[in-house]
Amino acid sequence: MPERIYNFSPGPGTMPQEVLAQAAKDIVNFNDKGIGLIEMSHRSKEFMAVTDEAESLLRELLDIPANYKVLFMQGGASSQFAFVPMNLLAPGQTATYLNTGVWAKKAIKEAELFGDIKVAYSSADSTYNHVPKDSDYTVDPASEFLYLVSNNTIYGTQFHEFPKTDKMLVCDMSSDILSRPLDISRFGIIFAGAQKNMGPAGVTIAIVREDLLNRAPATVPTMFRYKTHADKGSMFNTPPCFGIYCVGLVLKWLKKQGGVKGMEKLNQEKAALLYAAIDSSEFYRGHAQVDSRSPMNVTFNLPTPELEAQFVKEATTVGLDGLKGHRSVGGCRASIYNAFPKQGVIDLVAFMQEFEKKNS
Amino acid sequence: MPERIYNFSPGPGTMPQEVLAQAAKDIVNFNDKGIGLIEMSHRSKEFMAVTDEAESLLRELLDIPANYKVLFMQGGASSQFAFVPMNLLAPGQTATYLNTGVWAKKAIKEAELFGDIKVAYSSADSTYNHVPKDSDYTVDPASEFLYLVSNNTIYGTQFHEFPKTDKMLVCDMSSDILSRPLDISRFGIIFAGAQKNMGPAGVTIAIVREDLLNRAPATVPTMFRYKTHADKGSMFNTPPCFGIYCVGLVLKWLKKQGGVKGMEKLNQEKAALLYAAIDSSEFYRGHAQVDSRSPMNVTFNLPTPELEAQFVKEATTVGLDGLKGHRSVGGCRASIYNAFPKQGVIDLVAFMQEFEKKNS
Repeated sequence: MPERIYNFSPGPGTMPQEVLAQAAKDIVNFNDKGIGLIEMSHRSKEFMAVTDEAESLLRELLDIPANYKVLFMQGGASSQFAFVPMNLLAPGQTATYLNTGVWAKKAIKEAELFGDIKVAYSSADSTYNHVPKDSDYTVDPASEFLYLVSNNTIYGTQFHEFPKTDKMLVCDMSSDILSRPLDISRFGIIFAGAQKNMGPAGVTIAIVREDLLNRAPATVPTMFRYKTHADKGSMFNTPPCFGIYCVGLVLKWLKKQGGVKGMEKLNQEKAALLYAAIDSSEFYRGHAQVDSRSPMNVTFNLPTPELEAQFVKEATTVGLDGLKGHRSVGGCRASIYNAFPKQGVIDLVAFMQEFEKKNS
Repeated sequence: MPERIYNFSPGPGTMPQEVLAQAAKDIVNFNDKGIGLIEMSHRSKEFMAVTDEAESLLRELLDIPANYKVLFMQGGASSQFAFVPMNLLAPGQTATYLNTGVWAKKAIKEAELFGDIKVAYSSADSTYNHVPKDSDYTVDPASEFLYLVSNNTIYGTQFHEFPKTDKMLVCDMSSDILSRPLDISRFGIIFAGAQKNMGPAGVTIAIVREDLLNRAPATVPTMFRYKTHADKGSMFNTPPCFGIYCVGLVLKWLKKQGGVKGMEKLNQEKAALLYAAIDSSEFYRGHAQVDSRSPMNVTFNLPTPELEAQFVKEATTVGLDGLKGHRSVGGCRASIYNAFPKQGVIDLVAFMQEFEKKNS
């Protein structure tokens, strides 16, 4: 086993090594203040500075306009599936959803508790192997918003362009936030669990347009209102301090890599290597349709399930870990988020070629 | 500044130093597996073992009966203020609450969204300086449960005995869980944010009697149902992995200290030292009534607000940190949770005596 393995896990995913080293130091003694980071009051000057820096880096890196709030929340993206319709839909109001995978489907289920939900498109019949083009569906004109999942982790698909519509977009970006530049002004709400591209599990970031903060009906509990968290700078209650701190470190690292543009370039390079390896072989078959391919999660099959199991097992023994596909798709999946090193992709491609030679 | 300060913060609170040291190691390389703890899939064998161990230690230390589920959740105790009535009260059903401080009051506000809430007692008029005796109030006979906050962090009060009633108890134990033995069978639900007595911010523990899991009305979103989390062993979605891991380490440490009985003895010793210092002086005045005094949070005043500010400031310079009282009570507060070392209390008492000599 090498000193550090290559971790292809879909999430929690690999993190920059320098972030881990810094966190290890600060956990015991933050800034040499004689107190560990995770023991500090969230209202201390020191921790408020940590939160402020994380927010300002995110604003800078994603070019977030001033009329959007950045919230550090808890509960994962799965809680946002309920937060969004609770905050945006009064009874009888309509929203349009695109069903491009399990996470979209789960979001639809929660939204149906609160409003009249139109599912304008579903790729379920093709095991979610693609995302739709604008011309493939119609957004109900009564819709308050169009909801989509930008990157579908399980199937390895991504919207390369966001839908063009006069409705505001609401988007689950859990598995590709910060991987490419965005025009935030087209979105009402963007949310993302941190544990794929931003940090550890336990903190969820929501970017919410200010004018949407006052729409929640009076029946929504305090903690489930975006406004509660926006009004108190994510400090209405004790926030997930360690998670916020780590997100800040990851963002600092990301800025040094050239920001989201630098990341986009690197992500495209990594993905191109892997997709080229798949396309140049009869042994490996990509799951996602070519024009929907994700640069974050690369899904592929081998000739038989037995070979797939053997592939995953042998890869693990040489330090290429976490390549098993999701049970709903089978096969293999290489998750190569922002922090995943290019060398790991190069090593995987070499392993794939060797494995093919031995087994075809 | 000493190498490690004494951290009297009310939460996030001080943690055992050996827990911090272990976490620092595992964050970079968990069990020498070449992968950091916070990068590992929550569904990996290794992380499942972490969660299982944390749960089984909690069961052992609190002697939790088999018909209770232990859930690792997110959102803090503040989210539980809504979870409890959402899961336990159908429209028109009744519950009785005891208003012993800000956190009880906030819980009452959320409960009123879901049921008919009777506030049987309030100590608001005396700045919450005590908790009621059983004879001070009546539980509405139609109540589904009696809700209380076992320890009131801000005011330094604690229920030394839990109410005797034929109703099940629902209890917010955020600031004194694991500080003393409990008869769990008297409770329907116990919940607690981890960041005072169990670990870092970002994980909330709920102990829920199994027969209560099916009571949530169909209108409650998936993520806000206890059953969702119970059915999937707290892995319905990505849990707050780092928090769960740290709770496990704290529980291991706690077991070595003699478990909750060992903790109770130590906590009583620490609190006795501090209350004796207050009672033996005319300079310091305790905020809480003597028979409601908390062994976790010791609140006291000095002759003037100016002296209080000076006290807090001078204490900080000698490494006694976080002694400022909550703005709603003023004065000083020493939070001396499980992990707070006895030597820190001894040092504080010495500092108090010296400060009194110089300033009275």
